[in-house]
Amino acid sequence: MSAMRYTYLGPEGTFTEAALRTLPEAATRELVPMVSVPAALDAVRNGQAAAAFVPIENSVEGGVTATLDELASGEQLMIYREVLLPITFALLVRPGTELSDIKTVTGHPVAQPQVRNWLRGHLPDALWESAASNADGARLVQEGRFDAAFAGEFAAARYGLKPLVSEIHDAENAETRFVLVGRPARPSAPTGADKTSVVVWLGDDHPGALLELLQEFAVRGVNLMLIQSRPTGAGIGNYCFAADAEGHITDRRVGEALMGLKRICPKVRFLGSYPRAGVSPADTAALRPGTSDAEFISAADWLARIQDGRV
Amino acid sequence: MSAMRYTYLGPEGTFTEAALRTLPEAATRELVPMVSVPAALDAVRNGQAAAAFVPIENSVEGGVTATLDELASGEQLMIYREVLLPITFALLVRPGTELSDIKTVTGHPVAQPQVRNWLRGHLPDALWESAASNADGARLVQEGRFDAAFAGEFAAARYGLKPLVSEIHDAENAETRFVLVGRPARPSAPTGADKTSVVVWLGDDHPGALLELLQEFAVRGVNLMLIQSRPTGAGIGNYCFAADAEGHITDRRVGEALMGLKRICPKVRFLGSYPRAGVSPADTAALRPGTSDAEFISAADWLARIQDGRV
Amino acid sequence: MSAMRYTYLGPEGTFTEAALRTLPEAATRELVPMVSVPAALDAVRNGQAAAAFVPIENSVEGGVTATLDELASGEQLMIYREVLLPITFALLVRPGTELSDIKTVTGHPVAQPQVRNWLRGHLPDALWESAASNADGARLVQEGRFDAAFAGEFAAARYGLKPLVSEIHDAENAETRFVLVGRPARPSAPTGADKTSVVVWLGDDHPGALLELLQEFAVRGVNLMLIQSRPTGAGIGNYCFAADAEGHITDRRVGEALMGLKRICPKVRFLGSYPRAGVSPADTAALRPGTSDAEFISAADWLARIQDGRV
Amino acid sequence: MSAMRYTYLGPEGTFTEAALRTLPEAATRELVPMVSVPAALDAVRNGQAAAAFVPIENSVEGGVTATLDELASGEQLMIYREVLLPITFALLVRPGTELSDIKTVTGHPVAQPQVRNWLRGHLPDALWESAASNADGARLVQEGRFDAAFAGEFAAARYGLKPLVSEIHDAENAETRFVLVGRPARPSAPTGADKTSVVVWLGDDHPGALLELLQEFAVRGVNLMLIQSRPTGAGIGNYCFAADAEGHITDRRVGEALMGLKRICPKVRFLGSYPRAGVSPADTAALRPGTSDAEFISAADWLARIQDGRV
Repeated sequence: MSAMRYTYLGPEGTFTEAALRTLPEAATRELVPMVSVPAALDAVRNGQAAAAFVPIENSVEGGVTATLDELASGEQLMIYREVLLPITFALLVRPGTELSDIKTVTGHPVAQPQVRNWLRGHLPDALWESAASNADGARLVQEGRFDAAFAGEFAAARYGLKPLVSEIHDAENAETRFVLVGRPARPSAPTGADKTSVVVWLGDDHPGALLELLQEFAVRGVNLMLIQSRPTGAGIGNYCFAADAEGHITDRRVGEALMGLKRICPKVRFLGSYPRAGVSPADTAALRPGTSDAEFISAADWLARIQDGRV
Repeated sequence: MSAMRYTYLGPEGTFTEAALRTLPEAATRELVPMVSVPAALDAVRNGQAAAAFVPIENSVEGGVTATLDELASGEQLMIYREVLLPITFALLVRPGTELSDIKTVTGHPVAQPQVRNWLRGHLPDALWESAASNADGARLVQEGRFDAAFAGEFAAARYGLKPLVSEIHDAENAETRFVLVGRPARPSAPTGADKTSVVVWLGDDHPGALLELLQEFAVRGVNLMLIQSRPTGAGIGNYCFAADAEGHITDRRVGEALMGLKRICPKVRFLGSYPRAGVSPADTAALRPGTSDAEFISAADWLARIQDGRV
Repeated sequence: MSAMRYTYLGPEGTFTEAALRTLPEAATRELVPMVSVPAALDAVRNGQAAAAFVPIENSVEGGVTATLDELASGEQLMIYREVLLPITFALLVRPGTELSDIKTVTGHPVAQPQVRNWLRGHLPDALWESAASNADGARLVQEGRFDAAFAGEFAAARYGLKPLVSEIHDAENAETRFVLVGRPARPSAPTGADKTSVVVWLGDDHPGALLELLQEFAVRGVNLMLIQSRPTGAGIGNYCFAADAEGHITDRRVGEALMGLKRICPKVRFLGSYPRAGVSPADTAALRPGTSDAEFISAADWLARIQDGRV
Repeated sequence: MSAMRYTYLGPEGTFTEAALRTLPEAATRELVPMVSVPAALDAVRNGQAAAAFVPIENSVEGGVTATLDELASGEQLMIYREVLLPITFALLVRPGTELSDIKTVTGHPVAQPQVRNWLRGHLPDALWESAASNADGARLVQEGRFDAAFAGEFAAARYGLKPLVSEIHDAENAETRFVLVGRPARPSAPTGADKTSVVVWLGDDHPGALLELLQEFAVRGVNLMLIQSRPTGAGIGNYCFAADAEGHITDRRVGEALMGLKRICPKVRFLGSYPRAGVSPADTAALRPGTSDAEFISAADWLARIQDGRV
């Protein structure tokens, strides 16, 4: 039954699956790997799945453009949840392989910059060839096509391999952000540590349009955590911007900022309000004075009074 | 009956009375001159008059500080109307006086800078002494204390004088703005060419507070026509600001800007929304895209929809 | 000899003279009272005096418009020094007069709002009539025209009066700022707690011009301590702005901000850089990061290097 | 000799080579294909080549992250030139192959979204498998591994293929921007239609830092043509920004804006000032008043005069 089915960017054994399994409800859902981000999302759009789980941002490689572009175009979807997963690699080999035996290594192209230094130090002569995914690389090692694959340690068992080295990561703090995406719905209730994602198209390319966009947020005291340009497909120099703002769409300051964007931009797409992964309400930045819901409500009362001649 | 009584800054025969009489309803009101702006306004505050008519801004001398300060403090009042009056002076003398006879001239101190060049050219040796008002100057000429007075030409008859020279004004475009002030009430309906006046106190003197104040207006596309600092009385360096904004408090962009001020400033006093004198709706500047009421309403509908999960 | 002569806004015995005498060099100058601010400044312009000492800002009444307007127009002058003087009044009477004898009081119109509450409490029935100056009021009491005058206590001896009550001031912190004005010269060296005064005319009245003016200061981290609109004389709605900025014109951030103003405004008049009265360098606000002279110089070096192909 | 050698992102037969050959000097250089962007740039860094030619931005896929990240890190390089190339694909097949024979197609992953719609319409059942480059896809067709490859038409001859269909491109205006990158040097002289590229790191992640960055440009009237966030590698939420600004580093407004960035940002990397491809000086936007070199120079003269006491 589709309401119990979550698709995800496959194959099995990747970091995406590992991240998905950190969600409590994953235990009671049918988890279906798909060959691509568009395929995972299309399953949601056409009703075959309740939600899709895909990577959206990588601390080393940046935004996952396939996901950003899919969310920005086509039938509208909404982000329900986010998951942050630290990314460290294990070097998986067939049982019996020693480091000195390794002549060829593989892994997803995104893995390469994250293990490059390690390779230079430990396997300077090994040849790298990219695989379609980290899990696929593991499979190719199982089949004997490569001597070793970089993948999540959790992938070893599935492919009959063993981790020769663990915790490999050139960059400290390497992590990937994943999102659970479904059909548009009423956003879940605010938790006090929320994030709101939008895609905003700028008007006829007038200089200063991005500044105006940022000021709509700034004047209401809404902090941006991410702003990322994406081409609109209308030629070099035409961009839309994916932005993540602190706060929930039911927060007055966020709602007013979004209405401001809606008025000045030709197109705004709301991608969801959802809890920030790994952040509790106690960890969020203090609101700028004058931007709490209570202050918005009090100001609205004042306006109603003076419009009515009562002061 | 106080409901039919308008006070004004007297005495009779000044520009203030002349400006007041341009209001259609002045013909059916009891017009009572008062000795000072505070006296004229206090009559409204204590219920002895329905409204007071006082000067608020002079194109040569600047804001009329007595009026600004009275409106900013004490029991709250509201501007109902404004009147713009071109200011040109006549040189009033007793019948028979020739220009060559004039050794002493008088007038309100505010008149002096507006006739200084004329005096230098035509009566370089005449001694100037200030009077309490232009009308008072005329009375002193009538009594023989001075040879000539600068006043509005309309004051001649009342004091048995004749205008020896008319249309005297050093500055082109000299004009004074007057306001009709009453007790707080529901503002009159918007006309399409309206003005909204407020007084805003800035927070604890942090640099940039004025910039933030202006941005609350700018981000909603609300133009300011006047911004004038006034001391708060709490020592050098402590100011409040009187601001006139284009638009009516029932315009969404104006209302949202005022709510923004209300949230970030320790105190905001609404002084009224009223028709702009001498400006028809056709003469007003085009709204910045995204700031019309229709666009505010459409954005609010959009927000309600996405908050409800409908896209 | 004119180089030793300072004019000041007279008459003798006013707060202006008292403030002037706080300057060390006043002891060795010929101090000449003048009948008006323009007269005091004109003596400098035509070479009869080395400098003029005039009030420029009053914490109760606001900017002294005669001074602001004189500095903004005519032949250019420059502020050399400022003096802050706390303002408290004494009630001066002829010897033998008791409080219960007082039926009439006088003083400068500016004094009235500063003693209004005191009068209401102690002499509710006394009639107030304004004098041309506080000192003039004292003289009129001496001559028997009034029973009492509000003036500086220092004026008592000069007019054979005695202070019946001292330290009268409705507003706490009432003070007046005076400036010593001379012909344009190289500003005195920075002290670390300086102020720079300018008058800025805005362009063709486009909305947002004031915001742009403030941003020229803000983007270079230059705090404004005062911004005051003055009519340009070209009709209601046409203003120039007198602004006091923290810092000295030889500070890079101040110089760059002024050049920015010079480029975007039709007219900028520099009124001087001078030490802030009553503020030591230790009391000044910390500079915003990136705005010190050292950082400006370092950035200029960097620019020169990269323009030259060295990185 | 390395001074005559240009590396480029290979292999031969790609759009990159085609774009490189539009440069006049390409005819007299030794053009060496490299396996990756880092390899092409490293050849410049280590002195084996005078310059490298690599893609930097794609109107469909966005910034070429390998190039952006290589330019932002490591030993500093500089952009000398840019080239814009319209991107349309040909479907290359072995001679004799008909459309109805095609069961498998290949091409670079970036090509896929640009031909997806065409495939859906003309070869709905063909299986897509990605190749390492468009040229590599052509080679694989030559070797018989696939029936058809999407590549530039210019690649057909090299691999013994023929273009079965030409001018395939889902998106109108698809184009790619390439840059010629060398070691830091004095930038070429301004042409009147120039572009300046920088990478800017924001400070300790304070909200509003991006807004401040944009204001440094805006207040000097410098338009931004591109702003693109890239992860710094220090974890999700840490970004630097690659920005392209209109103008040349020797333009005063650009220089002052860059110095402003240098002061407020922990790190700024200058990537070069170079002529805008396809834009003549006549096509550039008018400068905002107050931002021309003449106005900067005039304001600097004014500042020097008033600092010197001459007005």
